[in-house]
Amino acid sequence: MESQQNYDSLATTLRDRRVRLAQLIDFPVILWAGKSYPRNFPANPFPFRASSHFLYFAGLPLEGAAIYLNDGRLELFLDEPSPASTLWHGEMPKREEIAQQMGADAAFPLSELASRTADAATLAVQDIATYQQQEQLLNRCVNRANAPEGIDRDLAKAIVSLRLCHDAEALSELRKAAAVTVAAHKAGMQAIGGRDVATECLYEATIRGAMEGMILAHNMSCAYGSIVTVHGEVLHNEQYHHPLQPGDLLLADVGAETERGWAADVTRTFPVTGRFSATQRDIYETVLAAHNACIEKIHPGVEYRDIHLLAAATLTQGLVDLGILRGQVSDLVERDAHALFFPHGIGHLLGLDVHDMEDLGDLAGYAEGRVRSDRFGLGFLRLDRPLQPGMLVTIEPGFYQVPAILNDPERRAKYQDVVNWNRLAEFADVRGIRIENDVLVTPEGSEVLTATLPTEADAIEELVLLGGRN
Amino acid sequence: MESQQNYDSLATTLRDRRVRLAQLIDFPVILWAGKSYPRNFPANPFPFRASSHFLYFAGLPLEGAAIYLNDGRLELFLDEPSPASTLWHGEMPKREEIAQQMGADAAFPLSELASRTADAATLAVQDIATYQQQEQLLNRCVNRANAPEGIDRDLAKAIVSLRLCHDAEALSELRKAAAVTVAAHKAGMQAIGGRDVATECLYEATIRGAMEGMILAHNMSCAYGSIVTVHGEVLHNEQYHHPLQPGDLLLADVGAETERGWAADVTRTFPVTGRFSATQRDIYETVLAAHNACIEKIHPGVEYRDIHLLAAATLTQGLVDLGILRGQVSDLVERDAHALFFPHGIGHLLGLDVHDMEDLGDLAGYAEGRVRSDRFGLGFLRLDRPLQPGMLVTIEPGFYQVPAILNDPERRAKYQDVVNWNRLAEFADVRGIRIENDVLVTPEGSEVLTATLPTEADAIEELVLLGGRN
Ligand SMILES: [Mn+2]
Ligand SMILES: [Mn+2]
Repeated sequence: MESQQNYDSLATTLRDRRVRLAQLIDFPVILWAGKSYPRNFPANPFPFRASSHFLYFAGLPLEGAAIYLNDGRLELFLDEPSPASTLWHGEMPKREEIAQQMGADAAFPLSELASRTADAATLAVQDIATYQQQEQLLNRCVNRANAPEGIDRDLAKAIVSLRLCHDAEALSELRKAAAVTVAAHKAGMQAIGGRDVATECLYEATIRGAMEGMILAHNMSCAYGSIVTVHGEVLHNEQYHHPLQPGDLLLADVGAETERGWAADVTRTFPVTGRFSATQRDIYETVLAAHNACIEKIHPGVEYRDIHLLAAATLTQGLVDLGILRGQVSDLVERDAHALFFPHGIGHLLGLDVHDMEDLGDLAGYAEGRVRSDRFGLGFLRLDRPLQPGMLVTIEPGFYQVPAILNDPERRAKYQDVVNWNRLAEFADVRGIRIENDVLVTPEGSEVLTATLPTEADAIEELVLLGGRN
Repeated sequence: MESQQNYDSLATTLRDRRVRLAQLIDFPVILWAGKSYPRNFPANPFPFRASSHFLYFAGLPLEGAAIYLNDGRLELFLDEPSPASTLWHGEMPKREEIAQQMGADAAFPLSELASRTADAATLAVQDIATYQQQEQLLNRCVNRANAPEGIDRDLAKAIVSLRLCHDAEALSELRKAAAVTVAAHKAGMQAIGGRDVATECLYEATIRGAMEGMILAHNMSCAYGSIVTVHGEVLHNEQYHHPLQPGDLLLADVGAETERGWAADVTRTFPVTGRFSATQRDIYETVLAAHNACIEKIHPGVEYRDIHLLAAATLTQGLVDLGILRGQVSDLVERDAHALFFPHGIGHLLGLDVHDMEDLGDLAGYAEGRVRSDRFGLGFLRLDRPLQPGMLVTIEPGFYQVPAILNDPERRAKYQDVVNWNRLAEFADVRGIRIENDVLVTPEGSEVLTATLPTEADAIEELVLLGGRN
């Protein structure tokens, strides 16, 4: 399926990763891939998704496997497919063949893993069946991944320092995921393009089907549960049953993941008729201004928290200009007034996980010694570190009218003097807008990996209107 | 989202189901829905799939919920969404509202469930986290679902007797799943239609994307991992990376599942150029003859095992006619010669699970007192019961050239005298063919729920050739 050249490149990368790991720790490591989960009966599983830490050092999604890393050495532990499995699943590569693709130094059946557990560190996987095996084989408690202790915590910190900045192999995968994600978003716009939502029966699900179908057609999977909704104000909306109606904005947050697990994460918001209303365009351009300002500011050494605060200030300025907020921008941001409409962080790390390394809690997202703020306008920030070349982050400002926030009596009282509620009411056709791109920090500044999907309002309109025909 | 009339009909059905359950058992029952599984970190879960036994009596996929059934009474145990959840997931129906939709007699928070555990039977769910809660709350061992004991086993048998034959509500859902599945298969053929696979770069994944995209566009999900492959001889093939090349047959086994969990399961095999070769058509028509003979034979009272044997005999006759096998058909079937090319059963129960109630092992598939045969040609049969009106079964004969079977020296020796290997070699362009429909047993005989998707070779060719343009 893949060329030997691809595998050579993978093996070289994997060797480099574990050599760098060995420079950071002086104890052996075992990482488990995990197993697929049964859906409604064991023979009907969900698709297998290997643990991301395993994938980082093993490269391939090998269900049930474990790897042993010690001083730059890699050993693969994997059972050969049974003869019955060959009957049903066809000829699979043998252990030795896979070991060679990975550039492993040795390969053994899983039963040999017990000989390698002495003093080994690990990170807990998500699936409980494998997690229990981890504790049993290591013969000790293993804390959940978000609270590792002892050598497991040292391992987690070492892995964070490696995974924070992407190597060439990772970037090659991340670019593939980004390209297919752009194609998926275009497919979603094309599924609407030229159709009259007033007379044709289109649903959120129609667009989701077109988008995810495109991801599957590229032999990738979805990196996370897609959000494709005319109710963008519901931030984690995973329902798709609403009809598309004239005047609706559709918010689509959909990202592909390559076979080796590398993710993209992109959001666009577009009018289902192909034309923004004047109020929708006003808010859209406010969000876009924040998006553009953030990307402009991305450089090595810049604090990601400051990018977030820049988004808050830019959005706030836009809302002041529109007469929705009143006051000094800096005062308003200080008081978290922006968070009435932008109640999440400006983005997060992106890599093997869509929120990269979020299984480790805030160990990856927050620099040593930093903790989450309890401020309403900062507490949801998932990343608080100075940017470094090779980091991939999302930039995803948004504007939402969340009823649970805007109708909250306490908040209404607190922000009574700064919100012009009558003016806000004129923007009732803007329930939720988000614009999200995947941005690589480079030595010179930044590179938007998803730049081929336009963000300008005019370009979005054109894509939707002509979608079906270009 | 759904009309009150739909919910009234659901509530009436659920009442009827639990009243019938109460006629079979005299102890209380608690059924758990289960929870979604984390993908790579807890906030990124796989889509939630409720336990099928829960769905049968609760109707709705309520994550984390439990129901208590006693003497025809239904109590719902479900926690209200937290305020934080409302912020992120929007307004969700309250417990009381859901209870009303289901026609529950009462509704409580989950903390109250402990008051209902005395003497209650249950069935183990698939997810380990909930399974451990089951044992903890009931304060006893609960065997895995495929080996229930005591009242749990009595409950399993009672549920099997209810779920074996579908009521009107179930059939309405199953028909919806069947209709969308037919649309998905047509979408797959349309994705090829009129395109030249010799010059255009199409992959198995291209077709899978079109098919699953159609299922998602109808706001349904896939009932199982799709098989879309030019290597039909790999029976459980879940790879999609092969290019489509002139001369290939594409085998597509893809089925939709409704939001309430009811499944369809359909396979078609078609030439990617739109034209069968003469050898492909010969084998296709042999498989189709078996398919048609089986459906013809389906009537209440007929043993499903005899349907399987009829498929074996019809296929064998076809292969004798083609000169691939030689001898008396009845002798050949007795010797399992058919299983060289048809190494699986003719089908299975279909309902909330694609292999309905397979979580219970063979308790549903095999009538009391019957066990699996150790014959090569019968051991894979998943269903061995007399047919009853209201049962939904698949009919899925196939012909495969599985290298692990046909190159096995023992089998080659055993069947040396009955296989004409030279003649077989002429059919090398037929690696795997399966034709599968979903067939309801009716008082008069049968009804094919997926009949709008043609099976005749000519009709298949026409669909593929014109697919892009009709
Ligand atoms: Mn994001
Ligand atoms: Mn089937």
